[in-house]
Order: sequence, then C-alpha cells, then structure tokens
Amino acid sequence: MNALNTPHPAVTVIGLGQMGSALATALLERGHPTTVWNRSAHKAEPLVARGARLAATPEEALAASSLIIACVLDYEALHTVLDPLTDSLAGKVLVNLTSGSPEQAHEATAWARSHGADYLDGAIMTTPPGVGRPEMMFLYSGSDAVFEAHRPTLATLGDPLYLGTDPGLASLYDSALLGLMWATMTGWLHGTALVGAEQTPATTFTPLAIRWLTAVAGFLTTYAPQVDAGDYPGDDATVDVQIAAIDHLIHAAAARGIDNALPELLKATMERAKAAGHGQASYAGVIEVLRGA
Amino acid sequence: MNALNTPHPAVTVIGLGQMGSALATALLERGHPTTVWNRSAHKAEPLVARGARLAATPEEALAASSLIIACVLDYEALHTVLDPLTDSLAGKVLVNLTSGSPEQAHEATAWARSHGADYLDGAIMTTPPGVGRPEMMFLYSGSDAVFEAHRPTLATLGDPLYLGTDPGLASLYDSALLGLMWATMTGWLHGTALVGAEQTPATTFTPLAIRWLTAVAGFLTTYAPQVDAGDYPGDDATVDVQIAAIDHLIHAAAARGIDNALPELLKATMERAKAAGHGQASYAGVIEVLRGA
Ligand SMILES: NC(=O)c1ccc[n+]([C@@H]2O[C@H](COP(=O)([O-])OP(=O)(O)OC[C@H]3O[C@@H](n4cnc5c(N)ncnc54)[C@H](OP(=O)(O)O)[C@@H]3O)[C@@H](O)[C@H]2O)c1
Ligand SMILES: NC(=O)c1ccc[n+]([C@@H]2O[C@H](COP(=O)([O-])OP(=O)(O)OC[C@H]3O[C@@H](n4cnc5c(N)ncnc54)[C@H](OP(=O)(O)O)[C@@H]3O)[C@@H](O)[C@H]2O)c1
Repeated sequence: MNALNTPHPAVTVIGLGQMGSALATALLERGHPTTVWNRSAHKAEPLVARGARLAATPEEALAASSLIIACVLDYEALHTVLDPLTDSLAGKVLVNLTSGSPEQAHEATAWARSHGADYLDGAIMTTPPGVGRPEMMFLYSGSDAVFEAHRPTLATLGDPLYLGTDPGLASLYDSALLGLMWATMTGWLHGTALVGAEQTPATTFTPLAIRWLTAVAGFLTTYAPQVDAGDYPGDDATVDVQIAAIDHLIHAAAARGIDNALPELLKATMERAKAAGHGQASYAGVIEVLRGA
Repeated sequence: MNALNTPHPAVTVIGLGQMGSALATALLERGHPTTVWNRSAHKAEPLVARGARLAATPEEALAASSLIIACVLDYEALHTVLDPLTDSLAGKVLVNLTSGSPEQAHEATAWARSHGADYLDGAIMTTPPGVGRPEMMFLYSGSDAVFEAHRPTLATLGDPLYLGTDPGLASLYDSALLGLMWATMTGWLHGTALVGAEQTPATTFTPLAIRWLTAVAGFLTTYAPQVDAGDYPGDDATVDVQIAAIDHLIHAAAARGIDNALPELLKATMERAKAAGHGQASYAGVIEVLRGA
C-alpha cells in the first residue's frame, strides 16, 4: 500500500530542536507513523515516549518514510546531515522547513532535483507552542504537485498556504513577516520600558498594545492600496504630524533613561520621507525611501 | 438647566484640523450642540453645513459651552490660542486632546488650575476616520471627577479609557503606543518593499501581514509576564535563533536594493542582548538592553 493513500502517511522528521520536536509531536498526535532523527539523540526521548520511532542514523531516517520533513538550524546544518546521503534521496519528497534565504531555497531545489528527490520549501509562521493550531500559517512554495499531494499531512502542522512555484517565495515572505515581527516586538518592548518606568506592569500595558495593533492593522489595510497605486493621500494623518509626535516619544523615553535607537531611526526615516517631498503624505509614503532604486 | 444634565451637553471644539474636524463631526452626529473655532476659519465650513455654530473669536468659543475640547497641532499652538483668554477659563472644563509629552500635561494641569479651570488630558488612538467608532481607544488621565462627569460625551468620540490621576499617563501611553505603531508600520513597509521587489502587490501581502500580527500579539501575551518577572525562558524561540534568521532578511533585502537601516538596527539590538547574556532568552529578554539603568 502506498503511504500517500493512507489517511496518515508515514513521516520522517529530521532535526528535533524546539521546532522540529513540536512538528514531530503534532504528527504523532494526529496519528502519523513518525520516525525521528537528531544529531543529539537525547532530544528524541520525549518523542519516543509518545510513540515515535528513533532512527539510529540519518540513513535509517531517510529509509523509513517517503515524506521527509527537515527542520534544523540552517542550510549548512541541513547539508551537513544530507550531503553524505544523496544516494538515498531518489524518490523521496523533502519538505524543508529550515529557515533560509530565497537563494538557498532555489539552490536546494536544484540540489534535490539533481538527486532525484521532490522538494518543497516552507516557512513556519509561529513558535513551537503554536504548531498544530489551524490558525497558524505555514507558507510553502515550489512544486505545486508536492504541495497538493501532501496538503492533508501539512495541514496537521498548521494552515498550509501555497504561495507559488518560485521556491524562493516562502523564504521571501518569511523574511518579510519576521521583519515585521521584530520591528513590532522591539517597538512593544520600547513602549513597555517607557510605561514601566512609571510603574505600569507589562501585563497592564500589553492588552492595550494588542488592542492598538488591531487599529494599526486597519491603517495597513487603508495604506496597502495606496502603496500599490504609488499615491499616498495624507487625508488621515500626515508624515509631518507623525514627526511632531515622535519627538514626544523620544523626549519622554530619554528622560527615563531608555535606549532611543529605534525611535531615532524611525524619526530619521520619516525625515527622509519628508525631505523627499512626502511630508503631507500618509505614512505609506515612507515606502518611497525604503524601496530600491 | 445645567448643560451637564442634558442628554447631549453643549461642547466647544477648538482646532479643526483633520482630527478636530472629525471630533466635531462625531459630536454633531450624536446631537451635541457644537460650537467650533479654528485659526483658519474656512475649515469650519463643512461643520457649519452639518449644524455647528461657528464662533467668530476664541472668546466666543469659550463662552458657548462649559466643556471645551481642544485639538490643535501642539501645546505651543494651544497656548497661542488660550493664553490671551485665561480670564474666561474659570469654571470651564478643558479636555485637551492635543498630542504632547507627560511633562506638558503636568504643566497644563497646573496652568488650568491656576485659572480656575478643570483639566483632563487625553490621547486619541485612531486616525480621523476611526473617530466615533466604539472600538477605538481614547486615553484619559488627570481629574477622575471630570472624567466621570463627562464620560457619556467622551464616549461619543470612541471608547474612553481612564488611566489614573497622574495627568501625564495619557501622553505616556500615547507615546508608547505610537512608538509601537511606527515600528510596526515601518516593518510592514520594509516587508512590503521586499515582496514587492518580486512583484507581490501590497494588497496581496498585507492580509498575511495582518494575520501574522495576530500571531505576534500572542507572542506579546506570552512575553509580558516574562518582562514583569524579569525571567525570559527561551523555550519557544531564542534570541540566538532570531539573530540567525534576521541575516536572511538583511541579505534578501540588500540583494533587492532595499534600505536595511531598520533590520540592521534590530539585529544590533539583538546582538547587544546576546552580549549581555540573553542569547538563550526569549525575545522578551531584549528589554534588558532598552531599559534605563
Ligand atoms: N523556534 C521558533 O519559534 C521557530 C519559528 C519558525 C522557524 N524556526 C526555524 O526552525 C529551525 C530550527 O529552529 P529551532 O527553534 O528548532 O532551533 P534549535 O532549538 O536551536 O534547534 C536547532 C536544530 O538544528 C540542529 N543542528 C544545528 N546544527 C547542526 C549540524 N551542524 N548538524 C546537524 N544538526 C544541527 C540541532 O541539533 P542538536 O540538537 O544536535 O543541536 C537542532 O535539532 C530554524 O531554521 C529556525 O529559524 C524556528
Ligand atoms: N491625525 C491623526 O491621525 C491624529 C491621531 C491622534 C492624535 N492626533 C493629534 O491631534 C492633533 C491635531 O492633529 P491633526 O491631524 O488635526 O493636524 P492638522 O490637520 O495639521 O491640524 C492642526 C491644527 O492645529 C491648528 N494650529 C496649528 N498651529 C496653530 C497656531 N499657532 N495657532 C492656532 N492653531 C494652530 C491648525 O489650525 P489651521 O487650520 O489654522 O492651520 C489646525 O486646526 C495633533 O496634536 C496630533 O498629534 C492626530
């Protein structure tokens, strides 16, 4: 019987760090026969206790399933594990959830093809505790045939979104979304430090910050078509008004000894937009000074 | 009859820029007798067409209502308008929605008191199109008696949240939340520029970005108690893993000619957290290098 036709095909997970362990756990919980391998074997113990089969070697791991999900630190680690085993790759389907660049995804696609394997690139838009929750996004790009054939298994991990045949797209979106996350988390920490200087706990400030992010999401929805049109009517709030307001943040934070590198950079970015003629534009106009020539 | 006891007390709005005009519109729509004044009188025209009474002078505006809502560019503009009229302030209630610093809110409180006026400081957490929508936050601090007495009128503008008797709190939270907004919007624009370099429209990327912000809000909820405890278990994702991932963003953006000042700053901030011993901490640990000594 072909594993693909069973309701719960066998899967091998290579890499049992925080993320790989969460992936294997979700597969086990949904009833997939799951074989695991990790450089440091002890990390497999909790998974074996839940019914995973521990492969003694990467060869054994590859042999156990036709679908191989890899999630190691980076592409260097991936090649350290798989390069000695390229003879065993033919006929396998490799879904690579290791973070990397679009260029690395392109190279890996060619590398897998040259060894007779199908390859799908993916990016995980959650932390390990979110794995297995259907609202969490998993981004995929590359072979649409592989995506369609394995969609039910991939849906075990989260909501699988297919971005297109260009294998670099998942990494590209991943980087773009992570950049948004780091910016948001750092802005939140700066604000938390600011109100914290006046004895407001993070747990008091954060529900307001999250509610505010809902309003900010509304601004993004307003500004996205402005970006596509290249036209930024400043009919809600102008860059000039934001520049006036950011000075209050900078002064309030400086008075409380808080590091101001982030707001200073944001102000400088707005000032560049103003200097480029976008002072009366909406904040969306700032993209003009970020974009490549 | 005391205007405060009527269901729709009279209100004067001083300042009819984008925001002041939106405030006056919301008050008129809810049936408040509304008197308006603006330095450039022509901006009152659409409001007069909706039933507002135009005050010919700021004196007339002050005399018309016991509740005065001010929303001008900054405190300098506020004092330019009101300082010549301090004799007419006694017995008035001034709700100041002009953006400023906590220090300016403190000074304005003392200034209003010295002229016999009640004063409430406020901050508007939306753009003008959001004014009047009950999910939008309006932050207030200072006199709790003024807040309670005027809460129904303030609820016309949005959801009124009272932060405490310290008049600087609304400005402090405002700055903290705006900092989060600028960081988030700039991170979004950077990501939009990145995927845009591969022909993804902003209107395609933005719904994913907004969905991702929901996941990020979950991370903030996880990290807030870590900040309060000063203990940052890196059991979901570590600063070290983020540092590895941000390099992909920086390389992908650089390859597409996109300005990398923001991700470079975020990476430097993470590197400082790592150097301070927080490489294996969650991202919440980054606050340790932002906080004042
Ligand atoms: N954690 C998250 O929230 C998250 C979210 C989205 C994406 N990701 C991505 O998922 C991947 C794994 O992240 P993680 O959080 O699981 O990191 P982690 O806990 O640090 O685990 C790293 C994994 O890579 C393995 N590894 C590292 N170098 C290796 C080498 N030279 N040879 C063989 N194996 C090697 C480690 O094996 P040992 O156990 O032997 O060290 C471990 O299995 C990364 O690309 C990360 O960007 C993580
Ligand atoms: N727009 C938003 O999304 C938003 C959101 C939250 C808070 N706010 C805050 O709301 C306030 C007003 O913003 P806005 O967007 O309405 O700005 P705006 O459209 O630029 O309007 C500025 C207002 O201030 C008046 N003004 C400026 N200098 C003055 C002076 N020296 N004397 C008298 N009046 C003066 C202007 O009068 P003229 O018409 O005569 O120039 C106008 O009424 C700011 O503090 C802003 O930070 C705005």
